[in-house]
Formats: sequence, structure tokens, C-alpha cells
Amino acid sequence: MNIDNLVLHPVAGFYLGACAAKIKKSGATDLVIMELAEGSLTAATFTQNAFCAAPVTLAKAHLSSAAPRALIINSGNANAGTGEQGMLDAVQSCEWVAKELGCEVNQVLPFSTGVIGENLPMEKLHVGIPAAMANMSVSGWNEACKGIMTTDLVPKTVSKVVDIDGHSVTITGISKGSGMIHPNMATMLGFVATDAKINQACLQQCLTDAVNLSFNRITVDGDTSTNDACTLTATQKADMPLIDSVDSAAYKAFAKEINQVMTDLAQMIIRDGEGATKFVSIIVEGGNSQQECLQVAHAVALSPLVKTALFASDPNWGRILAAVGRSGIDELDVNILKIYLGDVCIVENGGRALTYTEEAGQAVMNETDITILIQLNRGAHSETVWTTDFSYDYVKINAEYRS
Amino acid sequence: MNIDNLVLHPVAGFYLGACAAKIKKSGATDLVIMELAEGSLTAATFTQNAFCAAPVTLAKAHLSSAAPRALIINSGNANAGTGEQGMLDAVQSCEWVAKELGCEVNQVLPFSTGVIGENLPMEKLHVGIPAAMANMSVSGWNEACKGIMTTDLVPKTVSKVVDIDGHSVTITGISKGSGMIHPNMATMLGFVATDAKINQACLQQCLTDAVNLSFNRITVDGDTSTNDACTLTATQKADMPLIDSVDSAAYKAFAKEINQVMTDLAQMIIRDGEGATKFVSIIVEGGNSQQECLQVAHAVALSPLVKTALFASDPNWGRILAAVGRSGIDELDVNILKIYLGDVCIVENGGRALTYTEEAGQAVMNETDITILIQLNRGAHSETVWTTDFSYDYVKINAEYRS
Repeated sequence: MNIDNLVLHPVAGFYLGACAAKIKKSGATDLVIMELAEGSLTAATFTQNAFCAAPVTLAKAHLSSAAPRALIINSGNANAGTGEQGMLDAVQSCEWVAKELGCEVNQVLPFSTGVIGENLPMEKLHVGIPAAMANMSVSGWNEACKGIMTTDLVPKTVSKVVDIDGHSVTITGISKGSGMIHPNMATMLGFVATDAKINQACLQQCLTDAVNLSFNRITVDGDTSTNDACTLTATQKADMPLIDSVDSAAYKAFAKEINQVMTDLAQMIIRDGEGATKFVSIIVEGGNSQQECLQVAHAVALSPLVKTALFASDPNWGRILAAVGRSGIDELDVNILKIYLGDVCIVENGGRALTYTEEAGQAVMNETDITILIQLNRGAHSETVWTTDFSYDYVKINAEYRS
Repeated sequence: MNIDNLVLHPVAGFYLGACAAKIKKSGATDLVIMELAEGSLTAATFTQNAFCAAPVTLAKAHLSSAAPRALIINSGNANAGTGEQGMLDAVQSCEWVAKELGCEVNQVLPFSTGVIGENLPMEKLHVGIPAAMANMSVSGWNEACKGIMTTDLVPKTVSKVVDIDGHSVTITGISKGSGMIHPNMATMLGFVATDAKINQACLQQCLTDAVNLSFNRITVDGDTSTNDACTLTATQKADMPLIDSVDSAAYKAFAKEINQVMTDLAQMIIRDGEGATKFVSIIVEGGNSQQECLQVAHAVALSPLVKTALFASDPNWGRILAAVGRSGIDELDVNILKIYLGDVCIVENGGRALTYTEEAGQAVMNETDITILIQLNRGAHSETVWTTDFSYDYVKINAEYRS
């Protein structure tokens, strides 16, 4: 897929510039500056990893003290595990951008992705920042998408013009991250912009909810990154009434669109990645709580036994059953739950379904997109997570990175 | 290693018989009966998996209602996920043994390991039980060890005569299970016998504590089996005073020996297994509780990122750091913790240790036995878990099993 051919709608008031600052050894685009028109509002979510990288710590601090006017993103170096020098470097990067733009340093949010434990090459950033800013444009999305990629094989973009309560609103977003955990910690970054007119509280609520149902519902191997972040900027340029209540019809319509955009961007991450041969939806229904549904879904999604069976297209229902059994939810009654592979019932009454045939299970497993449905039959909650299989290439990619 | 050449001390009052009942396709020994002299006491621990197999459910029930006189163990079929028929078959097996021995059915504990979801071949068991019992002997340990193996490459046995407060006590045990999770659910079984004179409460306490520090401290990929079980039988035949208090010197000496036996048997499981190329000890020190130490240790032990790096002998300290960071313990201060690979400090002050060199890290990773030490520096608790790496063969074994 040629990124340059993707049609990404410009978002009024959101400018992007990029350059190859030679942080990446390949010489590919690796530095992106996004400028937000005055009056723009930005919401963000960050990794929960206690070892978060310096730019994450700084971005959180800046976001809490000012409305951002710029985002600076570099790939090729995560500025993680870099101690005090890492923080000084992140601050310096923001200062250089602020100086160029004429804004305050805390109006710049920094993001980094790439190898960890190495200091940012500050000389390259010093030269790169004005170079990237020299080509700022509302049409800079395609180059920016290249600039945030690390080991991604496929660019991840969504762009659409939607109708929000009778008004036309543009939403464009990009994300990066590979289905498989990569040596750069598989950082997932997402940057979404819209021209919608919406206040800060509604915007943050919308992003938090959407990320919770999208980026927080994909899992490859349970490892989270030191650098994960997702932002949603609203430039307020659209011709529409302000969305200022989460109960309004306009908010609900907008939230639905943002949720879909985030889900699309998140699922693209699962579908990418060397070694990923399956796209697996794990649906848990009938749980007593959202929490227990997620607990069961993650136990299945992260089971190496289940994942290698998926790679082999092996309808090994016993592995799914055992993963559900060890998920640790209270008083699980294995005799009332049912498990389906696609629409084939594989487990009921505490064992293999009487109607199950190996042929029917095999037919489902031969597909690329596979759904595992687990009906707990004890409550009204349900949850879905998306994951992938575990292949030779997973081991290869992660074992051979530095050799 | 030829099992027949292993010296396993007989335990007075503990008899073993075995035969090839043709449950295993290979025709290898697959049925073992252990007879316990009258007056013997047995303690046991079982899998926590909610989907436990019929024999586990039945063994628990029998153990709670009578002192066992016999154990029946078959390999080649786990009798798991077999619903009501599975339970009827487990009961029938016990009945046959009880009839041969002249004891009550609830004095027989059943154990199964092998493929799941298939009913026990009862005709073969019916023929096999008397055949196995025809050669009962205190010297039957070696053949019994063969009989409980499934995909194990190496027999796992420990046998010793120890001094307990001036009295000679014999302890002999066998275990099965492979370092890598196998299609038969990697069932771990352990059967240990001693002639020690000890009451039931002390015996159970001793087993629970020892399993907690041995079998419960090894992990390959977080998947637990439907059939895991470990028993400790004391035939009371030794010439010694009764151990009837956990505060006695004799109990402490005995518990120390049992703990070592269980640890040896558990570590053999980690060292076995196609694909396991490393034996990794993960030590977490300075935690606020045992629980948080284990939480950190398991996050590192189960991280596919860390495990593939171990396979590659790659001193990728960033992956260990990130796994600690996502372990989810409260208020983790990443700036005060230290992480060592062997005796090489790799992380301090929130980043790579200043003294760290790639060469020093590489030297540690090149070894087969590797220790990862994580000092949380916030409390007085510590814990150790043992694990292995994640290799091509792990995927191969688990992907190709049924093809």
C-alpha cells in the first residue's frame, strides 16, 4: 500500500510537517510536528506502565497546565529508560518547537517511539525541527503517517467526513504499532484530529471511552509499552453548535464516529505485524461484570496454547476450555457455560459438545478471521477483545532483533 | 538417561505395580497402581483450574472421606472435558482397584494425564488393572516413573535417605510434566512417599508449604492444567517418634527435606521439554508483600518479549524493565529499583545502569542457567520463580501436535 495514494481529508486548523532527521538508520521520515490552530482543544490517554518514558511524563504534565499548540513526534528512538537525561532532552525538544512557533513550552506535547535505552540524538532534532516545520500544511497527513511508523508494514489511517446532527465534520487519524510486540516495545501511538466544535470535558470523555473500547481491547501478548499514547484534537473550526453535553444527540453521534475511528485504527494494529496470520475476536457474554468478561477474554487471548493452536488452524477446543477454567473468576460453573468457534458449539455441559465434529471446527479455524464466543450464562455483561495468533515469526522477530 | 538404572530407594509399606494397558498409542507403560500399607496417611494438592478433570474432582472427594489405600494413575488420556461419562469412568476405575485390593472405593484416588476430551478406554483399564497389580513391589518406582510420563523426555525422580532428629527416614518421589506446555495440558503430577511417622495435619501442612514453594513457583506460559496434582504419602513405617507438631525440630527437619525434594522435582519439569534452552530463576527482593513479589516475578516470567530475548541470549534489559513496569503493583517507584542479570546491574535510577556494558550482559545471557534479580527496595519480602525461554520449538510443538 502506497501511503501517498491514501486520501486523507485535511482538518481545518490542523497542520502537519515532517522530515527525515536521520534518527532512523534507514533514512526514512522520522520527525513529525503537528501545529494546532489557536483555540484547539486536545484530549489524551497514556500508557499505564509504571516505567513510562520521559516524553509521556512530560506530555502529561504539559497537558495538565495548558492547551497544546503543537505535538512533536519522533520515531527511531523511544527516549525510554533514559533517566534524568531523557527528561532534559524531552524538555529541550519542546523548547525548540515552542521557540519556532512562538508559544509556551508547556503548549508542546512530545511523543517518541523506537529503540529504548538510548538517548535522543539532540543534534539531529535541533536540525530536524525547523526542517519539519518548513513544510507545515493541512495536507501533511500522509508524510506524517510515514514519520510515526517503526516496524509497521502497513500504514494505519482513517479519514472521513461525517454528519453530526446536520453539520459536516471531518475526522482524520493515524496510528502506528505492529500486531506483534516489537523490540521498540510495540509502542502504539494514535493521533486523531477533527474540526468539531466541542468542549474539553466532552472531548476527553469521548476519547477515554473510545480508547477503552478500541486500543484497550486489543492485545497481542500482554506486554504494554513505555510509550503508548493517543490524542484527539478538536480544532473547533466546523460550522456547528458547540457540543457541551455528553447527553446531547450531537455528542452521541460524534462519540459513535470517534469510537469507530479508534476501533478501525486499533484493529489495523492487530492485522499488521509480521507473523500475525489470524485476526481473532474473543467475545465473552453473560458475565456478572465487565471486569470478569475481560478477565476471561484476556485469559484466552493471552494463552500461548490457544495462540499456537490458532496459528496451526487447529480446533483444539480443550485449550480454550482450560484457559477459561484458569481465568480466575469467582465460582465459575463450567457446566452451564458454552463456547463457540464461529457458529459451531464446541463446549457445553462441562465437556465437548455432543453436536461437535472435528470437520466443523476445522472449517472455522481455516478462516483468517476467527471468532471465539464464550457464553458464561450467569449475568448480563459482555465484552470483546481482539488478538492474533502466535507464530514462528513471532519468535523469530523478537529473538533476532538485535543479532 | 535410562530410567531402569536410576537408584530409587524403596519406601517400606509403599508398593507399585505398572503395565502397558495400550492407552498410549506407543505401547509404552501407561497404567500405575500404588498400594499404601494400612495406617498410611496421604496429603494432596490439586489444580486450581475451574475446569478440573473428573479424576481430580473424585480424588478430592475420596480424600476428604477416607484415608487412601491406593492410587491409580493412567497416562495417555486425561479424562478431562468428558462430562458425566468422565466421572462415571473415574468411579468405575476406583471400584475395580478397590475390588482387587479389598478396600473401599473411596480409599482409591484416581489420576489421569494425556489427551483431553476423549473418554477413558475402560476395556483397556479393566484388563490393565489386574495386570498392573500382578507385579506390585516396593521396587516398582522405576517402572511407575515410566508409566506416568507423557511427552517428558527425561524421567524425574528424587530418592534419598535422610536423618530426621537422629532417625533414618526414606523419601522417594517421581514427577511428570514438560517444561513446555504440551497438548495434553502439560499436566504436572507428583507422587512422593516416605516412611516417616507423622500425623495428617503435619503431613498436609508440609505438603502445602512445599508445593507452594516448588510446583507453584514454576511457570512456563501461565497455562495451568485441568489435571495437576501432587501427593505425599507417609507410611509410618520408620522407627522414630511421631511428628505431631509443626513446631518440633523433627517437623522442621522433615519439612526442609520434603521442600528440597519437591523443588528438585519441580525444577526438573522446567529443565525438561523440547524447546527449553534456558533455566531462568527470577528473584524479586524488597517487596511489601509476598503477593507483590510474585506479581512482579510472574510479569517477567510470562512476558513473551522477555522469553524470546532469553531464547536469543539477548541482554535486552529494556524488556525486563517494561515487564516490571506493567506488573501492576501499587505505586511502584521505578527510580529506586535495581535489576540485575546475574551479578551485572542493568537498571538503576529509572534507566540503564551507568556501569552496564553490553559485553557484561551478553556474558550472563550466554549461560544456560540465568538469574534475573529485581530489587524493589520498598519492603522485606522476597520470592523466587523458575521459568524457561520461548523458542521456535515451543511454537512447533504446540502448533503441530494434531497435524
